[in-house]
Amino acid sequence: GRLLVLIAGPCVIESEEATLRHAERLMTICNGLGMPLIFKSSYDKANRTSINAFRGPGMDEGLRILSKVKESLGIPVLSDIHSIEQVAPAAQVLDVLQIPAFLCRQTDLVVAAAKTGKVVNVKKGQFLAPWDMRNVVGKVAASGNENIILTERGASFGYNNLVVDMRSFPVMRSYGYPVVFDATHSVQLPGGQGESSGGQREFVETLSRAAVATGIDGIFMEVHEDPSCALCDGPNSIPLAELPALLKRLQALDAVVR
Amino acid sequence: GRLLVLIAGPCVIESEEATLRHAERLMTICNGLGMPLIFKSSYDKANRTSINAFRGPGMDEGLRILSKVKESLGIPVLSDIHSIEQVAPAAQVLDVLQIPAFLCRQTDLVVAAAKTGKVVNVKKGQFLAPWDMRNVVGKVAASGNENIILTERGASFGYNNLVVDMRSFPVMRSYGYPVVFDATHSVQLPGGQGESSGGQREFVETLSRAAVATGIDGIFMEVHEDPSCALCDGPNSIPLAELPALLKRLQALDAVVR
Amino acid sequence: GRLLVLIAGPCVIESEEATLRHAERLMTICNGLGMPLIFKSSYDKANRTSINAFRGPGMDEGLRILSKVKESLGIPVLSDIHSIEQVAPAAQVLDVLQIPAFLCRQTDLVVAAAKTGKVVNVKKGQFLAPWDMRNVVGKVAASGNENIILTERGASFGYNNLVVDMRSFPVMRSYGYPVVFDATHSVQLPGGQGESSGGQREFVETLSRAAVATGIDGIFMEVHEDPSCALCDGPNSIPLAELPALLKRLQALDAVVR
Amino acid sequence: GRLLVLIAGPCVIESEEATLRHAERLMTICNGLGMPLIFKSSYDKANRTSINAFRGPGMDEGLRILSKVKESLGIPVLSDIHSIEQVAPAAQVLDVLQIPAFLCRQTDLVVAAAKTGKVVNVKKGQFLAPWDMRNVVGKVAASGNENIILTERGASFGYNNLVVDMRSFPVMRSYGYPVVFDATHSVQLPGGQGESSGGQREFVETLSRAAVATGIDGIFMEVHEDPSCALCDGPNSIPLAELPALLKRLQALDAVVR
Repeated sequence: GRLLVLIAGPCVIESEEATLRHAERLMTICNGLGMPLIFKSSYDKANRTSINAFRGPGMDEGLRILSKVKESLGIPVLSDIHSIEQVAPAAQVLDVLQIPAFLCRQTDLVVAAAKTGKVVNVKKGQFLAPWDMRNVVGKVAASGNENIILTERGASFGYNNLVVDMRSFPVMRSYGYPVVFDATHSVQLPGGQGESSGGQREFVETLSRAAVATGIDGIFMEVHEDPSCALCDGPNSIPLAELPALLKRLQALDAVVR
Repeated sequence: GRLLVLIAGPCVIESEEATLRHAERLMTICNGLGMPLIFKSSYDKANRTSINAFRGPGMDEGLRILSKVKESLGIPVLSDIHSIEQVAPAAQVLDVLQIPAFLCRQTDLVVAAAKTGKVVNVKKGQFLAPWDMRNVVGKVAASGNENIILTERGASFGYNNLVVDMRSFPVMRSYGYPVVFDATHSVQLPGGQGESSGGQREFVETLSRAAVATGIDGIFMEVHEDPSCALCDGPNSIPLAELPALLKRLQALDAVVR
Repeated sequence: GRLLVLIAGPCVIESEEATLRHAERLMTICNGLGMPLIFKSSYDKANRTSINAFRGPGMDEGLRILSKVKESLGIPVLSDIHSIEQVAPAAQVLDVLQIPAFLCRQTDLVVAAAKTGKVVNVKKGQFLAPWDMRNVVGKVAASGNENIILTERGASFGYNNLVVDMRSFPVMRSYGYPVVFDATHSVQLPGGQGESSGGQREFVETLSRAAVATGIDGIFMEVHEDPSCALCDGPNSIPLAELPALLKRLQALDAVVR
Repeated sequence: GRLLVLIAGPCVIESEEATLRHAERLMTICNGLGMPLIFKSSYDKANRTSINAFRGPGMDEGLRILSKVKESLGIPVLSDIHSIEQVAPAAQVLDVLQIPAFLCRQTDLVVAAAKTGKVVNVKKGQFLAPWDMRNVVGKVAASGNENIILTERGASFGYNNLVVDMRSFPVMRSYGYPVVFDATHSVQLPGGQGESSGGQREFVETLSRAAVATGIDGIFMEVHEDPSCALCDGPNSIPLAELPALLKRLQALDAVVR
């Protein structure tokens, strides 16, 4: 059987040094656990709640840093893309092109990403039912690309709250592609702090365990060596120091259902 | 540590013979797994969607049958109560008095049940947040009864659908009492068939696995030897023949997180 | 055409004197507007959030006071009933028997109320779709009573929040019975203050206007001469002094769509 | 006081002839009612459910047609924009740049639209609370543009369904800019037909009346001379023939609350 994969990294690229340091620590953790790793970090947070929030180094500088991670550590890298113009340069560097949840219905972006032949990770929109992803899968596959990952990151549940419907995992897996659970965005309280989103880090383990027990292919987590200093999504990021024990528990659950 | 408990039985008491037969088969299954069993069956379905639906044998006859289960098999029995008048006779027979979800806010019923000293299992209303159960717990405890079980059975999610928010388990467990997951009512589609509620039996295992992996105390399932013939809640009942394998998987997950 | 009816009064019967005083002021207001009035006040709040909350004078004393309102002012009275035992005594006094939202699926209560021949006002449960009320209507009508009122009071929308779906008015009106909008319970934030429910009085007018503009038969409001001193539901009660202007605006909208 | 404005047109530009014909009929209707009109039609439906759905003539041809509408009839025109690259050419022709709901959090798009100085109409995302729009308004205003319109088009309510929370109108109006109700997208059932979105045209009038009665600035409707032949969003489009009577009723309600 396949192994449970980890997609992880700091929410946003804060600096070259910090990015490489996080990637290296993640690699060490995953090597110790025999867990495949895809490094994730965003070069641009294009949809922050407030116009004044930190957005990252921009695409060119961000891709340069991610390419350095890839070369120096030999691990695949993932980042999200926000417009058709970004697809070609991003595909030069990235192993996985991620379609953000808000953009999962933008046909041109999905198709352009698909046509690169790279792995495309589509996050399910907070406004979609699990079965609505069949049409998204159809857009990628119709573009000749079967390297698809689908990611659950919670559904709108009233205002400023998300709920993870565990039924979404078997529904989305039935389409024949790997399904990932984004454990840290799923505990966001969107807009819940007025000018930024809150987060309930205390529920990351609960939801991760539940998702893994249903039988999934990977887990996605934003991590940080010190979440209280993170420049984005600190309230829901997992401290690196807590990661090994958490992943070990998830692997043990995964072993039961695999 | 404590063992994962099973609360199970046919939704409604269909006949003395059928009830005893189901109880015996459940006991055999649970003995084989080393899993404590509480037998559940309702003597009256007081809130069926349609006025023409089968409701059960009524309280007197139902309690007589449940007392027979108890005596002949030596297993504890649970049923739900719907009015203060039912509390005293029910407490004569039942080991666990269950407060239905729709009634979980009816102070007099909760208090009357609590005052019997019996175990009180309160199902969380579909209209309540997990933290709203703190006040329900308060009503029972203020009546001098600490034998409390809290049961999750899904929250309203749009129309004719429920979602199980796995965050509810750690929230409710933080109140210090055992927490149970009702796996079969949680997959109901309330009113979803016009004159009765639909059900998505195919999601029972997914949700059960997820709930057990978060760390809970018991699992509640309506079972039937032949769900297609069940007089109530057939669409979401688990066939007895599938139960042993399912429970074994849940025990294996439970062993990881206990 | 029929006139827009007002169902109003203090949430709970606080005292004989206060009840009569509120009823008289309401009558004066409605007479001035040519608006039919049904006086509403509860003798027992059976499902308060906290066990320590004020519940009212109890059924006997409460019915005595309501019967005094009826005799001295000549206006119909409404109160909610919580168990089958209350149906007969309540029907001696009340013109309208109200089924609380949490209890709208309790078949025996609905049928017992129906069999009195009195008008039965069923509040739609927060957990029901508008079309689910067809089966509730069926339970009343099958008991030989066509004097039915259906009341919208909001649907669960995430946690501790309700939303009023205006589509519910035409759906419920299509069953052939008058439909009422409960403007003050619809702005509750259930459990939103920890040990009691919060309320957004500032939205009562917005929602009332919207509901009346869709074409409804009546409006339900809890009112109080001084909401800050109300013993129940103060945060969402309307001050009596503001009522005449509000009702006048609603009548003007009603005139457009009637 | 200001007049209630209509933003209307066929969902997508089907042809030059059809577009001009619809615009002319709309102008005649609005002139007859003394109602200001903004003509709306999309040159590209960038987020259709299925990859095979009709998308429109594309930006260049679409803008050419809209500019013809503008010149020949002298009415302002609105269309939605989907990427930064579209902003400059669109601003050459359009009077109102519309930000689609799914894209309302894309900072760069919002800012680029704002910097044109044109009126920017932002549709509230189905995944946002009304108060979350304060930050969106902030992004436009911080770009030096106070010509802002905010449009309500329903919030996610479970799966494949939207609910219009009438509280959103006073909340969004409190930010000081005109608020519009999109009556036809609000009755969509997103993804509700498997490969396309369903729609409940029968609720357009109910919701429009309700919204207007709360006090809003404009109403947005997709219309078609024959919705059964529309190339997009037929199930929720209003037949042109029914529009005058509907608008007259809305004006009458508006007159009461203005």
